[in-house]
Amino acid sequence: MEFSQFRELRSEDDRQAANEPHFDAAFRHKLEELLYWRRDVRHFSSSSLPQGVVDDTLTLACDTAPSVGNSQPWRFIKVSDAKARNAIVCNFQACNEDALRSQSSERRQLYASLKLEGLQQAPEQLAVFCDEGTIQGHGLGQSTMPETRRYSVVMAIHTLWLLLRGQGIGMGWVSILDPARLKRDLDVPKAWSFVGYLCMGYPLHTSRVAELQETGWQARQEPSATIMHRRS
Amino acid sequence: MEFSQFRELRSEDDRQAANEPHFDAAFRHKLEELLYWRRDVRHFSSSSLPQGVVDDTLTLACDTAPSVGNSQPWRFIKVSDAKARNAIVCNFQACNEDALRSQSSERRQLYASLKLEGLQQAPEQLAVFCDEGTIQGHGLGQSTMPETRRYSVVMAIHTLWLLLRGQGIGMGWVSILDPARLKRDLDVPKAWSFVGYLCMGYPLHTSRVAELQETGWQARQEPSATIMHRRS
Repeated sequence: MEFSQFRELRSEDDRQAANEPHFDAAFRHKLEELLYWRRDVRHFSSSSLPQGVVDDTLTLACDTAPSVGNSQPWRFIKVSDAKARNAIVCNFQACNEDALRSQSSERRQLYASLKLEGLQQAPEQLAVFCDEGTIQGHGLGQSTMPETRRYSVVMAIHTLWLLLRGQGIGMGWVSILDPARLKRDLDVPKAWSFVGYLCMGYPLHTSRVAELQETGWQARQEPSATIMHRRS
Repeated sequence: MEFSQFRELRSEDDRQAANEPHFDAAFRHKLEELLYWRRDVRHFSSSSLPQGVVDDTLTLACDTAPSVGNSQPWRFIKVSDAKARNAIVCNFQACNEDALRSQSSERRQLYASLKLEGLQQAPEQLAVFCDEGTIQGHGLGQSTMPETRRYSVVMAIHTLWLLLRGQGIGMGWVSILDPARLKRDLDVPKAWSFVGYLCMGYPLHTSRVAELQETGWQARQEPSATIMHRRS
């Protein structure tokens, strides 16, 4: 069943009473398309983005992303100077050489052929952290699972990703990095955990299909394989 | 600036060449509203959801959520029998008593007054895990930051959240749980990490403002406080 054809599940009366917006089938269809076309982008045009667009989009993401206990623990550092960017490139290269060596011999050649980041082309770059020491939220919801602070940061990143894609801007998330080295290179507070490094810019290539699928690295698995039922 | 008023950033020619959909201002405005109205829901109607709606939505979320190296490490267990649900309620109650005691004396009364979950009302419930041992994706992108597998699961949860909200269904994420106890109670494989417990159903109350803000627990901070610039 197509998501856009799902039934209207809340009655018109309920919606109007709450003064809430109506998300109709046309919107839901477009949202589905946005999710499919989001994709991790590694091939960027070097054209710069319009002034302010990253800040404005980031502001909206921060204002709407879920966070545990309303803690909003995300911290974004815009990385724009050449020295800092070069440190990230060196960090990636060292980690990627290790990663290449750890691949099985039959996959090594394919791995080496993959372009896994756009660090040298993407006009806008963000290093994203979680402030583990924030008092915002007074610790609510975090005592047994402090990792939910980092999960909140991840949802802010995902929100940013979708909002950027809605404007025709691509984003790629680089995780082949040594977090300790990155924290030293960018000189961030000790209490911050590194969550992800984001490259942003106009994509040279857009697709509804993930690049790792297109290049034959890994087929998508059937969603049904991941959904189980617990009966006692 | 309103997100819906952002410029069209990709030219019509580029879009048509890639055969990609156009996300116009009206769609972007609705998307912004969806993000604001998503909210963590703790007050559920006990009315059941239409047959299949959670499965269908989950399938779409699994098919579109980003995952590191295309690893799709999310594992969803639908928790529906009374014994398993009761174990989750007991787990929550024990953890929440500890959490209440750890709050400062001046916040304890307010904490105690908050309704932090809908475990006893929500008609549909999912326990969500990350399979740390999956070979899907061949380890790509995960060697220095294995936590990106869990971050992928978080983005699948966030995708589900938005898709449900688009259909008028509310979701609440419960994190005041002991992960080890939950894993024992639900008898899940050792290699799975617990990521979150989700309650789903029709909301009794909807709002554009977070419940923790409405109840005076914690005001939202200014997004600008979390965005910094690194210049050397």
